[in-house]
Amino acid sequence: MSAAPEQFLFDPQSPVFRAHEGGKLGVHATQPLRDRGDLALLYTPGVAEVSLAVAADPTLAARYTARGNTVAVISDGTAVLGLGDIGPLGALPVMEGKCVLFKHFAGVDAVPVVMDSGSVEELVEAIVRIAPTYGGINLEDISAPRCFEIEEALKERLDIPVFHDDQHGTAIVVLAGLINACRVLHRDLPDLRVVVGGAGAAGVAVTKLLQRAGVRDIVVADSRGILAPSRADLGGHKLTLAASTNPRGVSGTLGDALVGAEVYIGVSGGQVPEEQVATMAPEAMIFALANPTPEVHPDVAHRHAAVVATGRSDFPNQINNVLAFPGIFRGALDSGARQITEAMKLAAAQTIADLVDRPSVDQIVPSVFQEGVADAVAAAVARLA
Amino acid sequence: MSAAPEQFLFDPQSPVFRAHEGGKLGVHATQPLRDRGDLALLYTPGVAEVSLAVAADPTLAARYTARGNTVAVISDGTAVLGLGDIGPLGALPVMEGKCVLFKHFAGVDAVPVVMDSGSVEELVEAIVRIAPTYGGINLEDISAPRCFEIEEALKERLDIPVFHDDQHGTAIVVLAGLINACRVLHRDLPDLRVVVGGAGAAGVAVTKLLQRAGVRDIVVADSRGILAPSRADLGGHKLTLAASTNPRGVSGTLGDALVGAEVYIGVSGGQVPEEQVATMAPEAMIFALANPTPEVHPDVAHRHAAVVATGRSDFPNQINNVLAFPGIFRGALDSGARQITEAMKLAAAQTIADLVDRPSVDQIVPSVFQEGVADAVAAAVARLA
Repeated sequence: MSAAPEQFLFDPQSPVFRAHEGGKLGVHATQPLRDRGDLALLYTPGVAEVSLAVAADPTLAARYTARGNTVAVISDGTAVLGLGDIGPLGALPVMEGKCVLFKHFAGVDAVPVVMDSGSVEELVEAIVRIAPTYGGINLEDISAPRCFEIEEALKERLDIPVFHDDQHGTAIVVLAGLINACRVLHRDLPDLRVVVGGAGAAGVAVTKLLQRAGVRDIVVADSRGILAPSRADLGGHKLTLAASTNPRGVSGTLGDALVGAEVYIGVSGGQVPEEQVATMAPEAMIFALANPTPEVHPDVAHRHAAVVATGRSDFPNQINNVLAFPGIFRGALDSGARQITEAMKLAAAQTIADLVDRPSVDQIVPSVFQEGVADAVAAAVARLA
Repeated sequence: MSAAPEQFLFDPQSPVFRAHEGGKLGVHATQPLRDRGDLALLYTPGVAEVSLAVAADPTLAARYTARGNTVAVISDGTAVLGLGDIGPLGALPVMEGKCVLFKHFAGVDAVPVVMDSGSVEELVEAIVRIAPTYGGINLEDISAPRCFEIEEALKERLDIPVFHDDQHGTAIVVLAGLINACRVLHRDLPDLRVVVGGAGAAGVAVTKLLQRAGVRDIVVADSRGILAPSRADLGGHKLTLAASTNPRGVSGTLGDALVGAEVYIGVSGGQVPEEQVATMAPEAMIFALANPTPEVHPDVAHRHAAVVATGRSDFPNQINNVLAFPGIFRGALDSGARQITEAMKLAAAQTIADLVDRPSVDQIVPSVFQEGVADAVAAAVARLA
């Protein structure tokens, strides 16, 4: 478990700090540099020919530079893990870790770019300016609602894939898990009554992707209660979300929303009391994804639900973005996709779900280390590019 | 030799293009990722402890992230090699090559950042915003006079080393060569009459560093002739340069400046006719650094000069920045230097000069592949941090 902020201990001898000594990423040359001949190929004068060719035909950059396999993992550190706004330097170890995962699971050369925070416009301007360096952009741990506006602006202005993993990676793996939970429990997605607890980056993206997958009855609740157009305190993305959800027009708290619901997806942090969980429909599905402390402890959840998933590796059904993002970018880079489309996200979710040989209440998603996940996701994404 | 723009040929089977296939740089993890235990150390939940520690004490970033060994090689592609304004994508192969050199010669993990060009302010804002990612910034191939303003602004706003290699790398190695040329010819730097042909990035920096090293009589000429305060067409950095040079108040063309001069340093491109070279003082020193075509061909230069240096690897005395920049950054990163100071540049030049065991007219600087150059330069820089 990670320690809560007030509990953290800086212990240079602990395994975690020792594993981080010197950082987790390095850069290497892919070509030998042995003598003047190599130097003349890799640098001046030889490189001039490649530079001129790329300048004349920019599509050659994908072939003759590392750009075609390079993704920037970009964060301003305003919403890191469960830690909150810890700034760009605090975020850097997380971004390096993410780059390690990109390489390990999909062979993608990912580099962190941590940024001093600022207005949406300032961040967008800076990212657009450095974008020629990269084949894709993975946004990470940027606070809502800025993350939505930044992603939208970048998608409009850039012709490389831009993917905010906290939103879409989470949504894809949740959908994959829900597909298999439905298989196990013989249910149909469109008929489910779903409650999403949390209206931040993950909550918004999960809701939208489930809607695209056919789920009709989703009620979203934030810390003040159920989202509905009647709520006077809503603006921006929450108002949009309120308008597209809550078809039965319920109002009240998260507890009110849970009465009779078949699915609860917690992406809020906070805690849901057992007496509220107990009001859910029989054979419920609970995805309590807050880390390290799920909204409902799995032991409690199991008393009232047939399928229980968390974000933790020490319980079954870990909803982990690493099942999605490496393959998503692998597929996009390999196929030259300019966007990660909604169709690609749906296909990725279906692919991840299908990779579980025999889904059961204790296995609705593949293990993080199951072989071939990224390859299969990449193929699904590339097929749609 | 690199081809001139109009002559370049895109031949995927040529050695240069084959060496660039897939790019020249890769990223790798420095720690094994074998199982859930490793995952929990390198990413969630373990990484949270490191992130919190770094957020609480930002100096820990140098130790627990790759930042402490990472340099951004930043260009907007407006003044690439001898190729001119070929844009960020055209510049990318050159920047990747530079990163390969950083790693090979000094173990520095350098990553390219190529940027859409724009105003000085726009570039500075973007670089400042992403600067938390890096332990140092190497500016490259940015057109003058923007490069001066960008470097100055960044040095004011950032607390990491910022170094425009086209300026300072060139100046350091020129000074190193001049120190040894003086040894060979039994001359003293302060007594030399020096002509600098070119008032761009390299010309300005060479002039300033030679002045700091004690050279008193420098005349700078641009394409319109000798810089002097009387010239009505001068502004900005050229006016500043005019005010600090040309102590004898000569006027006219580069040819006029060369009459009786002991040193010519060409950083202009263009050609100097032999009849002008012939008017230099006896036992002259000629540094004709334009690539691939020196301002004076070495065969011609040797008819009128005792020491001849070029930027080319196929003649003796190659003035190559790679003798300086890897060690400069190695020393700065190792010592936590916040700036590359003038004293460090002088020390680097002296160190490079001293690494030539027995200076001769044909060896005034070490070979690019001489062992230990970067280490020695790094030590000299670190000593002054």
